[in-house]
Order: sequence, then structure tokens, then C-alpha cells
Amino acid sequence: MKHPSAWRRWLPAVPLLSWGREYDRQTWLHDGLAALIVTLMLIPQSLAYAMLAGLPPEVGLYASVAPLLAYAVFGSSRVLAVGPVAVVSLMTAAAIGEHAAPGSANYWAAATTLALLSGLMLTLMGVLRLGFLANFLSHPVIAGFMSASGLLIAAGQLKTLLGVTMEGGTFLQTLSGLVGRWSQVHGLTLGVGLGSLVFLLWVRRGLKPALIRWGLRPLAADMLAKAGPVLAIALTTGLTWALDWQAQGVRIVGQVPQGLPPLTWPTWDPALWRELWPPALLISVVGFVESVSVGQTLAAKRRQRIDPDQELVALGASNLSAAFTGGYPVTGGFARSVVNFDAGARTPAAGVMTAGGILLASLLLTPALYFLPQATLAATIVVAVLSLVDFSVLRRTWAYAKADFLAVLATLVGTLGWGVEPGLVVGVAVSLALFLYRTSRPHIAEVGLVVGTEHFRNVLRHAVVVSPRLLSLRVDESLYFANSRALEDRVNDAVAQRPALVHVVLQCSAINDIDASALESLEAIDARLRDAGVTLHLSEVKGPVMDRLRKTAFLKTLRGQVFLTHYKAVCTLAPEIV
Amino acid sequence: MKHPSAWRRWLPAVPLLSWGREYDRQTWLHDGLAALIVTLMLIPQSLAYAMLAGLPPEVGLYASVAPLLAYAVFGSSRVLAVGPVAVVSLMTAAAIGEHAAPGSANYWAAATTLALLSGLMLTLMGVLRLGFLANFLSHPVIAGFMSASGLLIAAGQLKTLLGVTMEGGTFLQTLSGLVGRWSQVHGLTLGVGLGSLVFLLWVRRGLKPALIRWGLRPLAADMLAKAGPVLAIALTTGLTWALDWQAQGVRIVGQVPQGLPPLTWPTWDPALWRELWPPALLISVVGFVESVSVGQTLAAKRRQRIDPDQELVALGASNLSAAFTGGYPVTGGFARSVVNFDAGARTPAAGVMTAGGILLASLLLTPALYFLPQATLAATIVVAVLSLVDFSVLRRTWAYAKADFLAVLATLVGTLGWGVEPGLVVGVAVSLALFLYRTSRPHIAEVGLVVGTEHFRNVLRHAVVVSPRLLSLRVDESLYFANSRALEDRVNDAVAQRPALVHVVLQCSAINDIDASALESLEAIDARLRDAGVTLHLSEVKGPVMDRLRKTAFLKTLRGQVFLTHYKAVCTLAPEIV
Repeated sequence: MKHPSAWRRWLPAVPLLSWGREYDRQTWLHDGLAALIVTLMLIPQSLAYAMLAGLPPEVGLYASVAPLLAYAVFGSSRVLAVGPVAVVSLMTAAAIGEHAAPGSANYWAAATTLALLSGLMLTLMGVLRLGFLANFLSHPVIAGFMSASGLLIAAGQLKTLLGVTMEGGTFLQTLSGLVGRWSQVHGLTLGVGLGSLVFLLWVRRGLKPALIRWGLRPLAADMLAKAGPVLAIALTTGLTWALDWQAQGVRIVGQVPQGLPPLTWPTWDPALWRELWPPALLISVVGFVESVSVGQTLAAKRRQRIDPDQELVALGASNLSAAFTGGYPVTGGFARSVVNFDAGARTPAAGVMTAGGILLASLLLTPALYFLPQATLAATIVVAVLSLVDFSVLRRTWAYAKADFLAVLATLVGTLGWGVEPGLVVGVAVSLALFLYRTSRPHIAEVGLVVGTEHFRNVLRHAVVVSPRLLSLRVDESLYFANSRALEDRVNDAVAQRPALVHVVLQCSAINDIDASALESLEAIDARLRDAGVTLHLSEVKGPVMDRLRKTAFLKTLRGQVFLTHYKAVCTLAPEIV
Repeated sequence: MKHPSAWRRWLPAVPLLSWGREYDRQTWLHDGLAALIVTLMLIPQSLAYAMLAGLPPEVGLYASVAPLLAYAVFGSSRVLAVGPVAVVSLMTAAAIGEHAAPGSANYWAAATTLALLSGLMLTLMGVLRLGFLANFLSHPVIAGFMSASGLLIAAGQLKTLLGVTMEGGTFLQTLSGLVGRWSQVHGLTLGVGLGSLVFLLWVRRGLKPALIRWGLRPLAADMLAKAGPVLAIALTTGLTWALDWQAQGVRIVGQVPQGLPPLTWPTWDPALWRELWPPALLISVVGFVESVSVGQTLAAKRRQRIDPDQELVALGASNLSAAFTGGYPVTGGFARSVVNFDAGARTPAAGVMTAGGILLASLLLTPALYFLPQATLAATIVVAVLSLVDFSVLRRTWAYAKADFLAVLATLVGTLGWGVEPGLVVGVAVSLALFLYRTSRPHIAEVGLVVGTEHFRNVLRHAVVVSPRLLSLRVDESLYFANSRALEDRVNDAVAQRPALVHVVLQCSAINDIDASALESLEAIDARLRDAGVTLHLSEVKGPVMDRLRKTAFLKTLRGQVFLTHYKAVCTLAPEIV
């Protein structure tokens, strides 16, 4: 339907209705295979990320069932794999850590409340079409935030890998805390952790080529390589059980309840809501940005498109469903979605089947996780988040744009120094402040005629002709309150230096808007030039700007003219140089 | 000296050294007359504004001595009259009211501390040349803030005019409080207040013409009219003393200590500093903006210039001197500076003589103020601030630019609803947010050739020729993180609609900057167009933008060309339409 009636516009669309109609057996096979691989990848990740968020491991499984079903109904991406992700888990821990003790019932209740708030915000933003707000997170800020979060997460896992007991904290606190507790390192735990780490890194880099060398087909090799973390879990769990490593001090996951995700009821405490809404907003925006960027990248590869506002609704629904089924905030995961895509997923039905796989795991598999060493899960997390860490953005922005470099640096320092929420807020604030600073110092060039053309360029950069009676200024920025005084100063200075001056023409080709403050500045410039015996003219004023100026008294009091082209202005006012 | 050595650049200039050398008898006479008139105006105002700030009346006198001397040394305006002003007094009351009880010693100490902080900030901003920060207060926001503050101050004085006892509060709280206390109105106080009010309004509107009719020369008539408030004070003080109105319940100023301004030592309490720095910053910025706008207006009338960064240093010195001589935050007053200018002040020596006059008043006149009714001072304040109230800005911005209108409205509602500090912060936040919103939705026009010229205009607004093989898009905004995705969307949509398309040329004449995020978007656009068999070109890329693009791989991977003019691009790619 190309022209939905007005009320339809405000209802969320249901993409399931379109792809569901075309579903066939061939698609089912593709989706099923992808679902199997993603399930194998998701089981260890969901357990590990839940622990990263400070929650019992089974909460990760719960957050990987209902949200996937909700996304399958509302999502506009065909291959996005929703569920617990590393950065959002870290942000969840940071948000709730201040209000409840990890492991307590209050803590879990606060996590479901956070999912509820995040779900409400995302849905509301989708319905109000506020997806553009995510554009205010610049690419460099996102890159810096992801890298810093990866480091922060990896540093936080070191204590589990080393078998050391300590509180969480900022990056530096964590590192210095570890140095201080060096003597407490538990050798066997370190062995399990380091062993898992090396194994997982080898699985990532070396297993697939090795399997292909051994004669497996590439797809099968890829599938087996993706199951690497499951293998690590099975191996270390088996060894711990067989050799009784628990008695020697290796910490294990312990009792994981068996059964369906529980129906939960988030906390309806206004005080908690007031404290959780700022982190919920940050989690929503970060989750949305991560999800949309992977969704768009994958959609473009198959010439499909995703609708950012629809994605907001879908992620909102996912988080709302997490809130009522014992989960915590979820979003579309980067690595997992790429795996889903590469494994051949065609439709969100793959997500439905993944949810089924996780459901089976939480019904049947949980007793087998009793002897799973926590250090193995920590190794899984470290290997997963190291792919987030990429400091090349620092080098690239340093070479290209110092403002972007400063924004990345602020994000990095903020995230590592104070934590995820301050880091993100500082990054956005710095990037916006630097943008405002740039626009507040507009580039204003004196231009002259390029001989033999009707074109004007900067007198400082090109060989052009000018007249002493005429000053041509090209204003390279929209005029608004923060920069209109700079234009006044520039015109004043230029006029004071040129005794022969009779005309000033402002070439407005780069002025896209003139706000009320800038209009007052133009009036002031006109009045001052008039007193000095100089006439102000405008040229190449854009249509929308002209429409607006026509409503004011400025054009009536202006002594000079408004020329359609700057060339015409020069032909009229200084014909000797044409 | 045109090229001061590097270290000189960081030292504040001392304009006194330049105008002091040329000082002569004629100038002295002009300055002396202006000083006399300003002194007569400043005595009642300084008493009244101190009470508005919640301070004892003599503090107003103290704040009108040392700050004027400091400004005379450092100020770049020849006629700015520094001292207590209405809006800054109101902001002082709002800032300190939360930390100390009005009338207590702590309250006064906090006021001097606020002056110290404000002085330090202004000086620092001046030395670091941060005067441009004031440009982020847009004209409409200032107009809205001043009008709302005027209303707020006038409403706050009503209780004194009516002789009613009540707490301060927001605008609505004050008005509803007065309605609830209607029965407590003290008749005689109301008579004194209303009488003073009517007298002062008559002095303002009717006295000068009447005096001229009675044969006085205009200048003398003007001087007498300016002394009106002094006359009102003398009259009501005399009547209160003679008729013993104090015994009948008219509240009087009472004991005002006689003597020189005291040497004071602001509070060096880190907790207080932490709480006072945000209001001190707002007071500094508002004071600076008020001061600079009147200073620039008056300087322009005599073809002089003022240096905003030097003004910051001068106002900083004034506030620092206030902090150590029992004063409170001061700035350049609008009405008072205009009077100084009109009365013929030539140099800041007029300020020195005004300080001398106030010093004499605080040494000799204070006993005479014992029976001064507070209602008279309230009437003085109401008459002074009513000139701030001007709601025409609402009508003007509504007609010209809805974004400016929203910013004014937010400032008005914020100031009247929550107070001066939230009002100002809301106004600045809304105006910046609306600016960012506008720039995040760039205007992108398809352009065509205006026949017979080398000029291109919007196809929707002008009769132009285009080719189906070539799409010319003019991007009317600098590209940055918040709007680069909108360009991607626009190009994608345009390409999808044009099957015959072979070339896309982005006319970059209005692009003043391309940040790192936008560069990634351009790379994405180029890659996607290439896949669709379309070539991307650029034209009219500005010098600074080109310099920066040359550092990147983008220009090397770009399949198309970068044309100096859009006309050349069309000549090359679609010669059939030229």
C-alpha cells in the first residue's frame, strides 16, 4: 500500500505479514541451518554476557527466547540476530550496580525494569519517527566507545581468568587492583582460563583452515569452527567434573535452574524509574545504533533496505518482551548477525528457530552446566570483545580531522576513566560542541572573477580579478546566532581597510538559513555601511532563504539590490572588470 | 603597537593609559556633568537593587565604588556605566537564596563569593579570548529572558508595594500568593508605593516636556528629570519622618551604616564554591552580554569600537574588586550607560567621578535614609524593569522563524515557571537543539542549467534544463555526522527512480566542511553507485574542503572527477544540454 491512511501511519508495521506469505521449504532449510549455528554460538555467549551484566547465567538464556520472537514479528531486517550483547550487558551492570547488589533479587528486578524502560523508549521513538536522533552519535564516537568498552570488558574479565576476588571499577582501578592482588592468582583457574583463551583464539584463526586441509567442505568447516566455544565449554566442564577441580578452588557456575523463562513483572517504583531512565536512554540509543549499523550493512549486500523507525519499534518490542520473561536489555548483535547472514539465513524465521534452540537448552541443558568453570565463560567474553577493540580510528581521524580526533579521544578517556555512561555522554557532548564551535567561526572569503568565466573564487587561492570599488564576500556558512557577529566584524574590518569602496556584495550561495539573530546582524551591517556611504547588496540568495526574507522589512530598507547571480551583480556594479 | 610580542598578548591591556594621556579640561567638564547625573540616578538604584538581591541597601552603594574604578582602568568602552543591575541582582538572589537566609551574615559572604567567582571566570574568559561563547545566547533568547526577568522582578516587588509579607518564588507562585493575601494589604504602604510609582512614571514621561515648557533648557530639564527618583526618595522619606508613618506600619529601610566600603574576604569554602559556580557562570555570561550589547551600540554611535575580550577582563576586574569591598556581582547597566552617554560622558573618568559621588553618599547621606519607605524603592525597581519587558519579539519571531519563536517561548516559560537560571539554560538548550535539528535535515536540491547562463538553480523553482543521464544535486549544508545519512538516503532514492542515469554530480558550493562520518558516507555512496553502474562526481568543492579530501583515499578510489565549476561538469558529462 503506497498511501496508507493517516491513522495507519501511526501504527507499527508488521513485516512478518509480507515475508511470511512467501515462505517455502527451500527458505526453511537455509533458515534452519543458520539457526543451528547461531544457537551453538548463542548458548555460551548468553550465559557469559548475563554474568558480565552481573546476572545469573540463566537470565542470558531467558533474554534469548521471547526477544527473538518479538523481533521476528516486527523487525525490518531479514538477518539481524537479537539477544544479549557485550556492550549493552556492560551498560546494564553499570546502570544497576548503583541501586542493588549483584546477585540479589532486587538486582534482577531492576534489570527487567531497565529492559521495560528501554523497550518503552525505543517503541515511542519509533512511533514518533525519532530514529534520526541516533545520527547525533558520530561514527568516530561510536568507534571510540566500542573500542573502550571492549577494553573495559576484557579488563573486567581478567579477575575471573586469574581466580582473584575484587570489586569492579574503572579501567585503571581494575588494572591497578589486579597488580595489587598478584599474589592471590589461582594457578589452576589461570590454567583453565588461559587454556580456554588460547583454544578459542586458535578456533577463530586456525581451526577452519585446518578442517579444510583435513578434507571438510568449507561450510561444514565453518560450522564446526563456530561451535568452538561450545567445545571449550564441554571440554573444561568435563575436566572439572572428572578431576574435581572445584575442590581445588576453581570457581564453577553451579546450579542453573531448569525450565521455561519465567513470567516476570518489572518493578513499578517511581523512584527507581527516575534513576534508571537516563541509563535506559543511553542503552536504547547505543543498542539501536549497533543494531541499525549491522542491519544496514547486511541489507545492502542483498540490495534490501531496512527502515530505522521500524527497527526502533522492533527493538522496543524485543525489550518489552524481555522485561516480562525474566530477561534484560537486548539488541541486535554484530558478530552474531554476521554469522547468521553468512550461514545463509533468509528470513527472521531463523530467529524463531534460534529461540526454539535456546528454549530446548534451558529446558534440557542447564544441569550439564553445573561444573562449567567461570574462567571459561570469561575467556569466551574476552575473545568476543577483542574484535570490538580497534584504535585505528585514532590514527585516521588525526590525519583527516582534528575535531573528530578530539571527539574520539574524549570518548576513550571518558569511558576508560569514568565508565560507559559518562564516556558516551562526554563523547556526544564534545562532538556537538566542536561542531557548534566550527559553525560559530564561519569561513568568509573575498572572491574575484575567474577570467573568461562567470565563476568566482577565493582571491587568496585563485588568479582572479577584483575592483577596488566593489567588495565581494562569499559567506561559507548558514547565518545563525552563534556566527552572525563574526560576519559583522568581518564586514566592518574590510570596509575600514578600503577607502575607495562603494559596494559590498554578499554572495549567499552557501547560506542555507538566516535566523532572527542573523537578520538583526544584516540590518545592523546595512545601517552601518549606509552611514559610511557604502551600499550593501546580496547575490545568489537561495529560494527558501529569499522566501523568508520577503516577509521582513529588511529587503524594503536595503538600499542595494538582490542579484540572481553574482556575475550579474558584478556586471552591474563594476562592469570594468568583466 | 601592531605586533605585540608573544607574552604581551596574554597580558590584559590597560586602555586607561591611552585615554588618560589625552585628558584635558574640556573633557573633564563633560565627564563631570555626566558623573553628577549618573550619581543621582545610581543612588536610589543601587539601594533598590541591593534589596532586590536580598542584601542590605548599603551593599548596593559599596558595589558602586570600587567596580567603577576597576572598569575605568581596564574597560574598552568609553561610556559604559558599571554597577548593580536589576537582572544580575535577581540572579544573585536566586543563586544565594538556596544556601543562606536573606539578611544573614552568611548571605552577604556568599554574595561576595559569587562576585569573586564571577570575576575569576570573566577574567579567565577574557585572557583565553572566550568572548565568542556569549554568541551562543541568541538575540531572541536574550530578549525573552530580559522580558521574563523584568516581569519576575516587578511581580516580586508587588508584595513590598502592598505591604504584604510572603516568601519569594516563581512568577505564578508570587501572583497566587498575593491573591491569597489580598486582605493583608496595608493601605498606607500601598498609598506610598502607588504614589511613588505614579510620580516616577510621570517623571519619566511628562516631567521633561513640562520643564521645557516652563522655560528650562532641554539639557537642564533632562538632568532634573533624571533626578526624579531622588526626589521621590526625599519626598517620601520626609513625609514618613514628619507624619510618623513608621508607627502606622509603613516599613522603612532603617539603620544604614555610615562609612567607607569595608574590606571583605570572600568565603574560601570548597563546598560553597562547588555550589555557586554554575550560577556564577550564568551571571557572568548574562552580565557580559548585557554589557557588551549596550557598549557596542554606544561605541558605534561615535565610530568607536570595543573589544569584547578586553571587556571580559574589565568586568572581571570590576567583580573581583566588588568581592573584596563588600559588594556583589555587577555589570554594565543598560539605562545607566545610555544616560551617561546622553549626558556627554567622554571617557571612563566619568565613572571615576561617579564612584566619588557614591563614596560621598555612603559617607554622608546614609543617616538620611533611615525613614526611607521600602515601598518607594520597590516603585523605583518596578519603573526601571518595566523598560525590559517587550513581548514584540514573540510576534516578530513567529512571523520570521518558528525555531526562534520556540526558543523565545521556552525561555519565557522556563524563566517565569522555574526561575532565571533554569529559564536561561532551557532557552540556550532549545535554541541549540533546534539549530542542530535544522542542520541534521539538510536541504538537497536537484539543480538544472539556467538557459543562456553558466548558472544552476533548483529545478522545482526555476525554468532550467536537465539531462536524464545526469543528476545534479546541490547539497545545501556542511556535511557532518548528524546529516550525512540523509545525503545517503537522498542519493539512493534518486538513483532508484532514474533508470537512464549514468552520472551523479554533487555540487559542493554550499559544503563548508566534511567531517570523518560524512567522509565515510561519501565513500559508501560512491561504492553503492559504482555497483549500480553510476559514476559519482563532485563539483565546486571549496579550497579548504579539497585540501582535506586530498589527504584521504577517497579521491583516489573515486571513479568520477572533481570539476572546478558545475558548468564544466555538465559540459563534459552531458554536452547535449549546454
